[in-house]
Amino acid sequence: MKKLFANRVLNNDTSDLDEIFKNSANPENISFAGGFPDIQLFPDDDLKQAYRDAIDADGQAIFQYASTAGPLALRQKLATRMQTHADVTASADEIMLTQGGQQAIDLVAKLLLNRGDSMVVEGPTYMGALAAFDTYEPTYYEVPVNKNGMDIKVLQQTLQAHPEIKLIYTVPDFHNPTGTTLSAKRRQAMVALANQYDVIILEDSPYRDLRYSGKSIPAIKHYDTEGRVIFISSFSKILSPALRTGWLVADPQLMTELIGLKSAIDVQSPNITLAAINSYLDHHDIDAHIATINQAYRIKRDAMLAALDKYFPKNITYTRPNGGFFIWVTLPQGTDAKTLLTDVVLPQAHVAYVPSACQFASRQVKNAFRLNFTSLDPETITRGIQQLGELLQPSPVQQTTTAAWVPHFN
Amino acid sequence: MKKLFANRVLNNDTSDLDEIFKNSANPENISFAGGFPDIQLFPDDDLKQAYRDAIDADGQAIFQYASTAGPLALRQKLATRMQTHADVTASADEIMLTQGGQQAIDLVAKLLLNRGDSMVVEGPTYMGALAAFDTYEPTYYEVPVNKNGMDIKVLQQTLQAHPEIKLIYTVPDFHNPTGTTLSAKRRQAMVALANQYDVIILEDSPYRDLRYSGKSIPAIKHYDTEGRVIFISSFSKILSPALRTGWLVADPQLMTELIGLKSAIDVQSPNITLAAINSYLDHHDIDAHIATINQAYRIKRDAMLAALDKYFPKNITYTRPNGGFFIWVTLPQGTDAKTLLTDVVLPQAHVAYVPSACQFASRQVKNAFRLNFTSLDPETITRGIQQLGELLQPSPVQQTTTAAWVPHFN
Repeated sequence: MKKLFANRVLNNDTSDLDEIFKNSANPENISFAGGFPDIQLFPDDDLKQAYRDAIDADGQAIFQYASTAGPLALRQKLATRMQTHADVTASADEIMLTQGGQQAIDLVAKLLLNRGDSMVVEGPTYMGALAAFDTYEPTYYEVPVNKNGMDIKVLQQTLQAHPEIKLIYTVPDFHNPTGTTLSAKRRQAMVALANQYDVIILEDSPYRDLRYSGKSIPAIKHYDTEGRVIFISSFSKILSPALRTGWLVADPQLMTELIGLKSAIDVQSPNITLAAINSYLDHHDIDAHIATINQAYRIKRDAMLAALDKYFPKNITYTRPNGGFFIWVTLPQGTDAKTLLTDVVLPQAHVAYVPSACQFASRQVKNAFRLNFTSLDPETITRGIQQLGELLQPSPVQQTTTAAWVPHFN
Repeated sequence: MKKLFANRVLNNDTSDLDEIFKNSANPENISFAGGFPDIQLFPDDDLKQAYRDAIDADGQAIFQYASTAGPLALRQKLATRMQTHADVTASADEIMLTQGGQQAIDLVAKLLLNRGDSMVVEGPTYMGALAAFDTYEPTYYEVPVNKNGMDIKVLQQTLQAHPEIKLIYTVPDFHNPTGTTLSAKRRQAMVALANQYDVIILEDSPYRDLRYSGKSIPAIKHYDTEGRVIFISSFSKILSPALRTGWLVADPQLMTELIGLKSAIDVQSPNITLAAINSYLDHHDIDAHIATINQAYRIKRDAMLAALDKYFPKNITYTRPNGGFFIWVTLPQGTDAKTLLTDVVLPQAHVAYVPSACQFASRQVKNAFRLNFTSLDPETITRGIQQLGELLQPSPVQQTTTAAWVPHFN
């Protein structure tokens, strides 16, 4: 049967990742692998009330087909929110609801990418975005990320060398997986480059509101002068991922096509889910809720950073994010984080992380990994990092030599 | 910006269809165009109760990420239902939940079709399926449908002439748009041909349970001997389309890839929707509900057929479906149903239908149209068909000549 499969499927091997997540689901392990919100922080009572209100408010009409873009009232609220929370001016007609941020990525890929078309991704980048893009078989150009986000100089060189590039995909706020944030100056520069080289920017910002320190920066779309930035975000990290509700902001000429594509993919999103979110926003203070979870997530981030500072050897570096879900750890050159995980870290430290290779389109960088700090409590975070850090201490012999660093495994 | 769009978007023109549906939404018109269930027949009280029960039963866990395939309890119920209602033996692991039947079509297209790959569709076929397939840019081979469904002799000739064909898409039960049902003999023959020519069959059966007369026939998948039939159905027509919930039944080697693709498209379907459907099936009798709606839909179908018999001229033919949502009307050769609609039928009879061309992959057949009989009450159906029939009466002069038939428009 396999010979009937499309190339996008034949060329795709996710078995590594499947194995990692299977191992990390083992309750004997402390898993920093997933990108899950803290289950204790869901506003479950308020969300349940919102569902009840939505169900009671509507008669039979809520069970009939509705528009592909989603209900106007909710799109209007998101338009207001885009102004107040991202400095983006957009009308309700420039906003559509999607099945989480993930569907928005799939839609934009479907809009733009023929097989082999060129695009820029960050190195590393969100592995779920790579999974979505992979199915359109693009040619990737990888631009490195440093502490101020995507390296704009390398971006410029890449666009100059490859004028056929159509799309830049970026996670500018508390980047998945490094936790870094693109500076305002770089946002402006990125838009200028997109204008110069006729490229569309896909700004994926699900963590934007989850800031624990530092000052908010306008969205890249704020600097958009030619309608070539598509902004996407999601309720997954600020309310609940099980709602499967995100939104996409795009100029009308792009929006018309994106709505047509969503219509062919799944017709529309479910009415009751969207009505419940609309009701939640009417009757509950989402920003107060976000302030609450930010306080809890700040404590978790600080616990992880303190543990990393205390237990990790000095030859291992890591990012210090101002928000979001993740910290990125870089091991000494020559270490393979995936082999280390399966051969040593899981069996001996009983800790899981996501190794770097599957988070690079090139699969070439192997000596790093992603840690999630939102899903566990601070004590478990500290214990897990301690277990991991003690395992990663260089052996006494190596400490006195200049030989390539090898972890001490016993 | 348009030059950045992928070919799948540039080659796609749905503006005709958009215009038709916009016109048909005008409340002054009687619209037979949509494929909507009767809003009065939704089990809205029971569905609302099911949502409340689902919300109350679960704590915070229902708001966390869950599996891509959907909850086991619901997949087990669907496995049982596949046995009792379609003569198909499938385990829960061979079933996944999708965002309506539409997403299941998109998933199968994504699994199989490289650009230019060959597939068979019925002529005519479900236009939403064409919209989904179009985005994968296949080469279509059109096989005609007659009163026993797809013409198996033409299918055999097509597969023989084009051994590169990978996929047959069929709506075997109360076909959209003709209302015809594939005979048991043809189902067996289709599976034999798929085995012989190494082809996958996508059996799209959202209307299967909506039978108003005649005897049920096993699903094509019942006759599947090599795991090459993928069966899809949906709660859209039997409960509510706003749930956006369908299901897909496939053998394990196909299912693994399909789950991977869904994960990259939208991660999973929304937990509360699936929990509510599961609760509905636990606490309410869906078959009693289906019996109720079938009784109402039978009356509507009979009203439309009686009005067609009474008011339509003899040179216009139409199907007599045993179930589903649609009747297919064929006008004399040379008539363009789309021009007729926009120039005459809408402005003079104030009636809307879906013209044939957009329901053929080839766009070549113009002298037919689809009528929906489920969304309106019997009196409105009768009145609409009368208005349409009186407009379509041949003029007295033409009745006495052998010249090409032209409707009498005044």
